[in-house]
Amino acid sequence: MYGPRDVRLEERDDPKIVEPTDAVIRLSATCICGSDLWPYRGLEPFDGPSPWGHEYVGIVEEVGNAVTTIKPGQFVVGTFATCDNTCEACRAGYQTSCVQREWMNPLGAQAERLRVPLADGTLVATPDLPPADLIPSLLAASDVLGTGWFGAVAAEAGPGKTVAVVGDGAVGLMGVLAAGQLGAERIIAMSRHAPRQKLALEFGATDIVEERGDEGVARIKDLTSGLGAHSVVEAVGTQESMLQAIRATRPGGHVGYVGVAHDVELPGEELFYSHVHLHGGPAPVRRFLPELVGLIWNRQIDPGKVFDLTLPLDQVAEGYRAMDERRAIKVLLHS
Amino acid sequence: MYGPRDVRLEERDDPKIVEPTDAVIRLSATCICGSDLWPYRGLEPFDGPSPWGHEYVGIVEEVGNAVTTIKPGQFVVGTFATCDNTCEACRAGYQTSCVQREWMNPLGAQAERLRVPLADGTLVATPDLPPADLIPSLLAASDVLGTGWFGAVAAEAGPGKTVAVVGDGAVGLMGVLAAGQLGAERIIAMSRHAPRQKLALEFGATDIVEERGDEGVARIKDLTSGLGAHSVVEAVGTQESMLQAIRATRPGGHVGYVGVAHDVELPGEELFYSHVHLHGGPAPVRRFLPELVGLIWNRQIDPGKVFDLTLPLDQVAEGYRAMDERRAIKVLLHS
Repeated sequence: MYGPRDVRLEERDDPKIVEPTDAVIRLSATCICGSDLWPYRGLEPFDGPSPWGHEYVGIVEEVGNAVTTIKPGQFVVGTFATCDNTCEACRAGYQTSCVQREWMNPLGAQAERLRVPLADGTLVATPDLPPADLIPSLLAASDVLGTGWFGAVAAEAGPGKTVAVVGDGAVGLMGVLAAGQLGAERIIAMSRHAPRQKLALEFGATDIVEERGDEGVARIKDLTSGLGAHSVVEAVGTQESMLQAIRATRPGGHVGYVGVAHDVELPGEELFYSHVHLHGGPAPVRRFLPELVGLIWNRQIDPGKVFDLTLPLDQVAEGYRAMDERRAIKVLLHS
Repeated sequence: MYGPRDVRLEERDDPKIVEPTDAVIRLSATCICGSDLWPYRGLEPFDGPSPWGHEYVGIVEEVGNAVTTIKPGQFVVGTFATCDNTCEACRAGYQTSCVQREWMNPLGAQAERLRVPLADGTLVATPDLPPADLIPSLLAASDVLGTGWFGAVAAEAGPGKTVAVVGDGAVGLMGVLAAGQLGAERIIAMSRHAPRQKLALEFGATDIVEERGDEGVARIKDLTSGLGAHSVVEAVGTQESMLQAIRATRPGGHVGYVGVAHDVELPGEELFYSHVHLHGGPAPVRRFLPELVGLIWNRQIDPGKVFDLTLPLDQVAEGYRAMDERRAIKVLLHS
């Protein structure tokens, strides 16, 4: 990532073990995240150029001598933040607040090989080498599925609940899938894009709302006896989307917000009188990863459908363009 | 309430039944709330003059012909917002978001008599006429105890938890009491005022932190292995106190905020990375009132100790001055 709208494939030295807790993996697949579009669009501070990307699955090539559970030859799924998975924050299920956390950017997972710090904590091995058709879904678990899942958990989606999802990007669509898996009774996807509506319905949405902002809120209230949804997953991260989520939630309901907040200032008085619960942040994907890998392995969910464009790594720049222009929901990259 | 620093006792016509769901009660006691100080200090918009006050206990004199459970002669505790206690918001425990909610201001409970709309929903009768020494505690249940209690519930105070309380006003002190009743292991009161510290310790605080702002946050982290408290009750409502509460909470912990938000804008990005749960708002005191009345009736709690100044109603102006100048924590008024 060189800077706004400037992504290049370059040859770099192969990553090596630096710390004894590291692993080096050969990536089977990687991808482009909606959050990568923030620096790509020049909408957040960026000190580049830097290796980029934070979603990855692959085969372990080498481990440091303090790594005890992850072994060379295993197929692993990693997450966008490293964690020891033993500290008190990790044990509480907030591995993205691990005391040893390191963000995978700028380690750079949009690559052929990757060094993963804290390998024992960060990586989850699959039961065996996966068949090729499972790789997209396992890759989705690395971030976008786990993030949507956390959004739905934070929104307390579950049996008897009406769940609304703000945002029809990959994370929002995974929020729809997660809400269904968590047993939600009704799932309202907020989307005005036909291909994304279609995917939302495939992932379990029961209703589509095309309106946004105050009109979108009014539609959600229409669908919920005037009260608002029990649970709203916010998967965008803007002021408008956060307010839409809060206003679409009934008193006592839950907003789970996983869109990385950009220029958001929540009005205290409105929040106070809304009576909603608010929870979210960088998803502790590691909390859910063993369960998600299991669901994928047993073919109970197929989150890999969220990838609607697959490109070789040397076309990474085209991948960014396709997502920026909303020609693609999510782009998978392979060597 | 005429306006900033201008409160007067005036003769008004006796309240009468207006709606068939009303009751009229003769007040045994009323009091001044920390939230009354906002208009008193000119810190929130105020269209006066208006009858004022929203905390009350007393004896039912008359009920409308649609009132079925509340009877003349009963001693009742009411809350600062009316509710039908039957709508979906009420049944979910959010009676302050009742579809029929009416704020007790400007009905005006700082008075000898009061009309209470939706009497069957809003009022809770005691088992019998209470002995005089229980009246202050029952009056506390009307708002300040129930509000502190909701703060502690929203912060998920409970066994094994470390709870910090931001704000040493009456609500904060009741948050301390509530945290203790809910079984919290450690309760840190943030206060620099000796009489309030003393009361906090009587109500169950295990630690006192005198520092505020970033220093206060650092002290809480010192006391909690660097992580922050599991639960923080925010009982002030300013930008500084909200940030202090959020920053003093560990990742995955809970902030329960009950201070009425004034000029608060929560920074989205900081909130996002904090990983806290945020919940609060106008306390649905009615949810807790039967339980709280029971605890008081059985003399298991003594929240009435929060009243450190008792004045006749004709000295109401002095009562406001004493609270404004922090000479009194909370002022009880009687006829």
